[in-house]
Amino acid sequence: MTMSALDDLRRDIDRVDEVLVRLLNERARCVCEIGRIKKELGIEVYQPDREKQVLNHVRSVGAEGPLGGDAIARLFERIIDEARRLERRVVHGERDEGGPNPMTRAES
Amino acid sequence: MTMSALDDLRRDIDRVDEVLVRLLNERARCVCEIGRIKKELGIEVYQPDREKQVLNHVRSVGAEGPLGGDAIARLFERIIDEARRLERRVVHGERDEGGPNPMTRAES
Repeated sequence: MTMSALDDLRRDIDRVDEVLVRLLNERARCVCEIGRIKKELGIEVYQPDREKQVLNHVRSVGAEGPLGGDAIARLFERIIDEARRLERRVVHGERDEGGPNPMTRAES
Repeated sequence: MTMSALDDLRRDIDRVDEVLVRLLNERARCVCEIGRIKKELGIEVYQPDREKQVLNHVRSVGAEGPLGGDAIARLFERIIDEARRLERRVVHGERDEGGPNPMTRAES
């Protein structure tokens, strides 16, 4: 076991991270598109049932992995939060003050 | 524009989420493997320089996307945090009390 094994693993992580960033942005694009459709149809932006469904889905997909369902769900709460912040800004024209998202300010 | 377009986009998000979960777990496996090597080589687990490098990397990869560099960096701070929590538990045998990670308790 040498330092080069460490470097190889770090390179692996960098490659995984690049794909993660691409997918997070792809996901955010879908969320904004959904926001546009909801705006057109006059549907409320914040839909807690769909959020619960997303969290249940990733929790069950991630249950077997090393992180486990709870950690995966915590990460997706953040992912959902960032996507909503973007949606409110680009679809609904609300200003982003750079602070915590008002939807989750209480828990921040 | 109909409700079925909304359903299609939600299905897209579910598929993206499944890959995200897989990659987050793959990343966590790499982090734990690095932890084992560091333990063998007697290297300190917490390496703030490597963390900065990871954050700079994802920030630059994500700069062009809709989420933007700041949101991507915030998400990866959490991803790193969850991976470190797992590493401390499975590699170093520390108990996880289920509360905030001690490394980041001050900012939680």
